[in-house]
Amino acid sequence: MLTQDKKQRNWKPIIKAFEAVLGKNGVVQRREELITYECDGLTGYRQRPAVVVLPRTTEQVAEIVKICNQYSIPFIARGSGTGLSGGALPVIDSVLIVTSLMRQILSIDLENQRTVVQPGVINSWVTQAVSGAGFYYAPDPSSQIICSIGGNIAENSGGVHCLKYGVTTNHVLGLKIVTPEGEIIDIGGQIPEMPGYDLTGVFVGSEGTLGIATEITLRILKSAESICVLLADFTSIEAAGATVSDIISAGIIPGGMEMMDNFSINAVEDVVATNCYPRDATAILLIEIDGLEVEVAGNKQRVIEICKKNGARNVTSATDPETRLKLWKGRKAAFAAAGHLSPDYYVQDGVIPRTQLPYVLHEIQTLSEQYGYRVANVFHAGDGNLHPLILYDNSVHGALEQVEEMGGKILKLCVQVGGSISGEHGIGEEKKCYMPQMFSQVDLETMQWVRQVFNPKGLANPEKIFPTPRTCGEAANASAIKQFEGVERF
Amino acid sequence: MLTQDKKQRNWKPIIKAFEAVLGKNGVVQRREELITYECDGLTGYRQRPAVVVLPRTTEQVAEIVKICNQYSIPFIARGSGTGLSGGALPVIDSVLIVTSLMRQILSIDLENQRTVVQPGVINSWVTQAVSGAGFYYAPDPSSQIICSIGGNIAENSGGVHCLKYGVTTNHVLGLKIVTPEGEIIDIGGQIPEMPGYDLTGVFVGSEGTLGIATEITLRILKSAESICVLLADFTSIEAAGATVSDIISAGIIPGGMEMMDNFSINAVEDVVATNCYPRDATAILLIEIDGLEVEVAGNKQRVIEICKKNGARNVTSATDPETRLKLWKGRKAAFAAAGHLSPDYYVQDGVIPRTQLPYVLHEIQTLSEQYGYRVANVFHAGDGNLHPLILYDNSVHGALEQVEEMGGKILKLCVQVGGSISGEHGIGEEKKCYMPQMFSQVDLETMQWVRQVFNPKGLANPEKIFPTPRTCGEAANASAIKQFEGVERF
Repeated sequence: MLTQDKKQRNWKPIIKAFEAVLGKNGVVQRREELITYECDGLTGYRQRPAVVVLPRTTEQVAEIVKICNQYSIPFIARGSGTGLSGGALPVIDSVLIVTSLMRQILSIDLENQRTVVQPGVINSWVTQAVSGAGFYYAPDPSSQIICSIGGNIAENSGGVHCLKYGVTTNHVLGLKIVTPEGEIIDIGGQIPEMPGYDLTGVFVGSEGTLGIATEITLRILKSAESICVLLADFTSIEAAGATVSDIISAGIIPGGMEMMDNFSINAVEDVVATNCYPRDATAILLIEIDGLEVEVAGNKQRVIEICKKNGARNVTSATDPETRLKLWKGRKAAFAAAGHLSPDYYVQDGVIPRTQLPYVLHEIQTLSEQYGYRVANVFHAGDGNLHPLILYDNSVHGALEQVEEMGGKILKLCVQVGGSISGEHGIGEEKKCYMPQMFSQVDLETMQWVRQVFNPKGLANPEKIFPTPRTCGEAANASAIKQFEGVERF
Repeated sequence: MLTQDKKQRNWKPIIKAFEAVLGKNGVVQRREELITYECDGLTGYRQRPAVVVLPRTTEQVAEIVKICNQYSIPFIARGSGTGLSGGALPVIDSVLIVTSLMRQILSIDLENQRTVVQPGVINSWVTQAVSGAGFYYAPDPSSQIICSIGGNIAENSGGVHCLKYGVTTNHVLGLKIVTPEGEIIDIGGQIPEMPGYDLTGVFVGSEGTLGIATEITLRILKSAESICVLLADFTSIEAAGATVSDIISAGIIPGGMEMMDNFSINAVEDVVATNCYPRDATAILLIEIDGLEVEVAGNKQRVIEICKKNGARNVTSATDPETRLKLWKGRKAAFAAAGHLSPDYYVQDGVIPRTQLPYVLHEIQTLSEQYGYRVANVFHAGDGNLHPLILYDNSVHGALEQVEEMGGKILKLCVQVGGSISGEHGIGEEKKCYMPQMFSQVDLETMQWVRQVFNPKGLANPEKIFPTPRTCGEAANASAIKQFEGVERF
């Protein structure tokens, strides 16, 4: 990876300008301190930024961005750095604007069910702040105890409970943003539907390319009266997949509906020993039903019937918080467990129509055998959002390349059956070369035009999302693109 | 109103080009036939188009738009013409592209709960096409038996059931659009969350300024197992308003929650004689609860308790389809009833936070007394989406101007309490001069930049949504703007 740093530019006056805005403590430039910021959750890609700045207010962010504009320096916003597609990866000679000091919950309005937060606020803090009054914030990425709301906005993050309640974009009412030229603008508002163009919708999921959100108005929901978690085990993937479809077709939308395959089940039992997950099951479903007590009781019976009809061997359920937590424990620990099983793993994030689950899982198994890498499948079954974890050893020469190639084939498969190359992790650095497989040239051009409107100099998070001949024309990526040749756009 | 027509331009080669694409029957140019197209549901504004064209396919729409580009002719798309903000109002010397021959339901995929339709398909046809299999299309504007899906997309239409299920934008998965330059592009897709910028979100509600949707992928929902309609009557607006807040605070989201005031109640009883609405009630609430039988039964009891606690005199309920229809009948006929009471009426479409209902309704009453025009209030209480109907007689000199001024004051009030100048009718021609009251100059400029990306020549539905010095600087509108002076942006 590239390790060029800040020598070629005269950073002295720039640092001085940053320090005038933030004080000396707000500017990080020592080489050993910068190492922390070399990568985000996509650990295979690394690039040290020239400088890291730590603003506390909207105005400070705007000042920093203006200085970057003055000197034509690329800048990248970063929250907690948990992103999985390299969205917060620095570029050479860039400024990383880190929001970890912007951690205030600015206001809470329970009556109108909204709260205004700074971008560095941790996802789970929002729920903590309002749970006493019986409310919660719905989007819950696996990393929710460390990931930031700003990062969630950038990547339009999902989570277990997004099946019923929608992803981040469905919970953002308005944003104060600093544009890539340093202007402060307000988009959206305090109420869900505003007249004019829906700029909030465009901004959420734009991965830092359209500016930096500095105040975020979130919708909070009333906590459910009752919650029930069911664990159903199956002797075939097809049966588990059919159960998922049948539950949705019955008009039941569970709070979450997750699937784990045999390999994942054994991995988590080895590591966290829930003693709840049957080690001989081909697949398990974890189904959370929430709502009124009567509703939950009724839906629970119907879900159990559907599971049994599809051949579930056992269905256990829990409504008390302690047992519910125990049932979820293995699912929540699945990624960590994969880390115990193998020195490295590569997570994919493809989406498919629910009806294609059995076919796609079978094809992934075939690829796994063909390439000789084990795959653990643990994913949001209700949304058709797959997270195959490909286990490999990065110290073996050529392994990463093979695994990336295999991952590319999984994405190709998702697109072939009418799905998508990303469900909730974003495109970032990692998948930009796959974008032409989902979008025509005109579609991508239209997005680029929109980008141009907000980000005319291209300084805000450059080289992300969109493929360029320079980055995607290189040998490795060209071969990745080649895999998709002949795939029809759906 | 302006009545200038097509004399100043040589239309001969243009008409010939249109006829080459659509045949003679697809091009309407006789003066008496054009009268139909002079206005939409905002009947106070009229402008005859130069030509009306009736395409049947995406390719024909693209060809027409290319011809308009070649000759620099402004064009406006129109569905059924039921819009209430003048979004389909022609401009001088323009081509009206009417989608009423694009009425095919192209595909239905029940398993994945989606359908692809042409823009001229009538809203209620979508539900009709899938109801046999137990599905429905959720957004239900009052005009649903005549309004088109294309128009719903343009205005991001709402309806009674949008409280629980969201407005049009929440039900559109993807769009094939003809850009204002005649290119055909696909935005969004078959699955809810796609990577890249959310252009579908921007397009929905853009009122025809970013292009013409020619194929629309809609999400369809499973019909509820059980539905219950409750009618609660109150002796004060405050009590009805508090009931609305309390129901939502209790974590119950009704399918719909509508309020009518005493004047509306008596108007509909005079005209359609439901014999269900108590004529002496100060306000009634119509509350529809849907879901599983057990859920509906449970929520019904809780809603009744909340109504009683807030002083409801009576709460009646119905689950059988016939009585439910009877309870809804008066609400559905409310606009028509206002038409019987008065030669003319002016509908407003403001949004306020639910907690502000009693205050705002009281202020509207004060304005009504001050101006001497009766106001019937009938609206989506759960969303805080007001529809005050101001009754007046257009044959009285100066009445329309007074009523528009009064309407402007109501919108000012909505903005003052943290609401919006439009809930579901759009900005169109009618409210563009109020946009600066909700958005800063930079916000509006940003939207205009986005418009510029799609619509660089400004030919697609010009003069809508955005205020211009020419249109909003004129005397009448300047005074409307003046009303808002001193109002803080929230």
